[in-house]
Amino acid sequence: MLHNDKLEQWDRENFFHPSTHLAEFARGNVPHRVITGGTGCHIEDRDGNRLLDAFAGLYCVNVGYGRSDIADAISDQAKELAYYHSYVGHGTEASITLAKMVLDRAPDHMSKVYFGLSGSDANETNIKLIWYYNNILGRPKKKKIISRWRGYHGSGLMTGSLTGLELFHNKFDLPLAQVLHTEAPYYFRREDQSQSEEQFVAHCVAALEETIAREGADTIAAFIGEPVLGTGGIVPPPAGYWPAIQAVLDKHDILLVADEVVTGFGRLGSMFGADHFGLKPDLITIAKGLTSAYAPLSGSIVSDKMWSVLEKGTDENGPIGHGWTYSAHPIGAAAGVANLKLIDELNLVENAGTVGAYLNKTMTEALGAHANVGDIRGEGMMCAVEFVADKDSRTFFDAADKIGPQIAVKLLEQDNVIARAMPQGDILGFAPPFCLTREEADQVVAATVRAVATVLP
Amino acid sequence: MLHNDKLEQWDRENFFHPSTHLAEFARGNVPHRVITGGTGCHIEDRDGNRLLDAFAGLYCVNVGYGRSDIADAISDQAKELAYYHSYVGHGTEASITLAKMVLDRAPDHMSKVYFGLSGSDANETNIKLIWYYNNILGRPKKKKIISRWRGYHGSGLMTGSLTGLELFHNKFDLPLAQVLHTEAPYYFRREDQSQSEEQFVAHCVAALEETIAREGADTIAAFIGEPVLGTGGIVPPPAGYWPAIQAVLDKHDILLVADEVVTGFGRLGSMFGADHFGLKPDLITIAKGLTSAYAPLSGSIVSDKMWSVLEKGTDENGPIGHGWTYSAHPIGAAAGVANLKLIDELNLVENAGTVGAYLNKTMTEALGAHANVGDIRGEGMMCAVEFVADKDSRTFFDAADKIGPQIAVKLLEQDNVIARAMPQGDILGFAPPFCLTREEADQVVAATVRAVATVLP
Repeated sequence: MLHNDKLEQWDRENFFHPSTHLAEFARGNVPHRVITGGTGCHIEDRDGNRLLDAFAGLYCVNVGYGRSDIADAISDQAKELAYYHSYVGHGTEASITLAKMVLDRAPDHMSKVYFGLSGSDANETNIKLIWYYNNILGRPKKKKIISRWRGYHGSGLMTGSLTGLELFHNKFDLPLAQVLHTEAPYYFRREDQSQSEEQFVAHCVAALEETIAREGADTIAAFIGEPVLGTGGIVPPPAGYWPAIQAVLDKHDILLVADEVVTGFGRLGSMFGADHFGLKPDLITIAKGLTSAYAPLSGSIVSDKMWSVLEKGTDENGPIGHGWTYSAHPIGAAAGVANLKLIDELNLVENAGTVGAYLNKTMTEALGAHANVGDIRGEGMMCAVEFVADKDSRTFFDAADKIGPQIAVKLLEQDNVIARAMPQGDILGFAPPFCLTREEADQVVAATVRAVATVLP
Repeated sequence: MLHNDKLEQWDRENFFHPSTHLAEFARGNVPHRVITGGTGCHIEDRDGNRLLDAFAGLYCVNVGYGRSDIADAISDQAKELAYYHSYVGHGTEASITLAKMVLDRAPDHMSKVYFGLSGSDANETNIKLIWYYNNILGRPKKKKIISRWRGYHGSGLMTGSLTGLELFHNKFDLPLAQVLHTEAPYYFRREDQSQSEEQFVAHCVAALEETIAREGADTIAAFIGEPVLGTGGIVPPPAGYWPAIQAVLDKHDILLVADEVVTGFGRLGSMFGADHFGLKPDLITIAKGLTSAYAPLSGSIVSDKMWSVLEKGTDENGPIGHGWTYSAHPIGAAAGVANLKLIDELNLVENAGTVGAYLNKTMTEALGAHANVGDIRGEGMMCAVEFVADKDSRTFFDAADKIGPQIAVKLLEQDNVIARAMPQGDILGFAPPFCLTREEADQVVAATVRAVATVLP
């Protein structure tokens, strides 16, 4: 590709980047980086750098970069038919096939899939369906949604409300009404450090029960959670957490939404987090791993129990008033079909489990004893290292010191390795493509050791 | 492509289609149609039908089907780099180039573009930016958004609230708080039939002024409107409407959001509806025409006035807490660049204006005198025919008779022409690709005459 000398100027003058310091970027003080290609776990930029992407984009390029099978499927679909809508019974061979493939992989009690574009819009769809469901069942008051602090469920108005992170609420007047937050299942950050894991789970359950009792179960429609907390810190739940939560929800007839945008299609070493932890969700949110981000596509998988009520709703009220122009977009559907086939063919779910376990083990061996490493945790192809000022007292660093971001920057500068400084804490997150090799895992760990040693000598 | 005999079964068992009667589709009583290709204004289905699509998908395939320039651009991008995120100053040559191309085409006072996926998510972004803007300016109470009845701004929770159509509110508990609706600028359906267009505009302005006075201008952040009402009935505004509304907004320091998802990039025969009607929006919503739907991409174009406050906001608060994983997705960006080039090369904006005017003129000549045609209206490549039970008294049909939908079905059955029965009224809508020829316009009109004659002999 021709090197366009104006590109940096065009970028700073015209492009509103997400999650960016807008003023500093416009002034030229935040780097501009143009990505030009990638293979496997590596990306390349226009300046000739080759980077090991240990976060798979935004934990989404699960099969890795440069997969020609998916590129060819996109190309063929673009040439055959780039777009037609999926309203009122329309579809394409790719979108119908993908619907079948998703249901073949989802837990048995799931019935249908609605395709959107992003995890955020899939959670919008979920809330609409939950409210519709309770209206059809004649329970107009049962509408509130309980989410967890540190949950991540999107960046829209309602979905950003579900998200339990300050960055997404501050200055945006969120959360909106109808959304409540309960305890994050974050054992390392438990308030009462004397609690055992079992006691902490009992505490989380009690907090949920209290919220339900205070608000009234007849006002609570649903509970939403990621099987493993993602952007909130990459935090697997303590043992026994999910069965205990599921029991509370069942008792109060509260729907469960499993947000599997990050965990769906293999990241935990299982096809879904719901299988992994024995959950029985009424809705499953899918996005990133559905297409490995090769084209935008998300979905809401609906259970038999909810679907039968939705059918009743349309018998009573006619067609459902919900749809996006780009629902089940043919390009996304074609990418999804090719991506799910590739995951099977390359046995990537198993690799995510085994190499992910290896990454977690070697990271723990290499950094577990460091005086400023408070916690190393993970599940499947997810790993987090959390830093503390003092290990014995579990004292955290001052946020203003930006220890996590500093280490992420060093990792990139010193060794061309991309990890992510997670918000709200000094947490370095890893979520590589599923095709990560043991040698690449070793490189990631070695580079992390060097970056930590530089910032926290 | 191999004919897959299971496709219909897979579809009915697994695929949750938007805007569909779910129960009837599952039972097999709503047709299943698999689209396999298209060229120009025509699509083809798996059963060998070739259909003249006079609605351009969902008024989005503006350049027409089968454009190899765009398919090749998608294919090349998929092979080079299908995905990397655009957070914190990252981009691709395509996304940066497209940002520049969008700003080159937008009104002069616009500054930056934030890329999303759908019109719905772009309007989510807009509301977030509007609230952030007024928080930074220290006006925490100035947050309500005024939309119009019959406006269409999306299908999410807040965006469906902005939408002023019953179908999108019923059983979904919408509209949510913070959204108010005012009079639709729909002259044909004015309550007081004795009003002149000028009097009706004065009435719309008075209704808006009343709402502002009742709520307090210090609580109203923004007004959102489509330059020409789309899904609400394809209704161009009466003469003088927009200047009068703009004056009210300016007086009360209320931001204007021009929702140009349908009108942006040429549908009115002008690049933007803002130019067409002399508006000065603070935000412009773009989507469909940006890529002609070849890949999902939307945008929020932000004015200089708002941008300077957003920069101040990040200087005070750090990076902005807003982003979608697929913001500025490379595949969508590549499609956008190729699409905007093609629109220029083929002179399609001008064609939308001239052939659109021809379509409106011939439709009026052919059907204007029909006893059950109350109104024929349009602007650029948009046209609507509205049916009435009695013309002199402007009595509408009973909605249960579904006159509009019946005519749309006949049009398809008899002549393989696709138009859309708009919701909330017996309105047949046309919004063909910009490459429509006069011969194709003649076919559309002739087929419409036959369909009307069949249903309303």
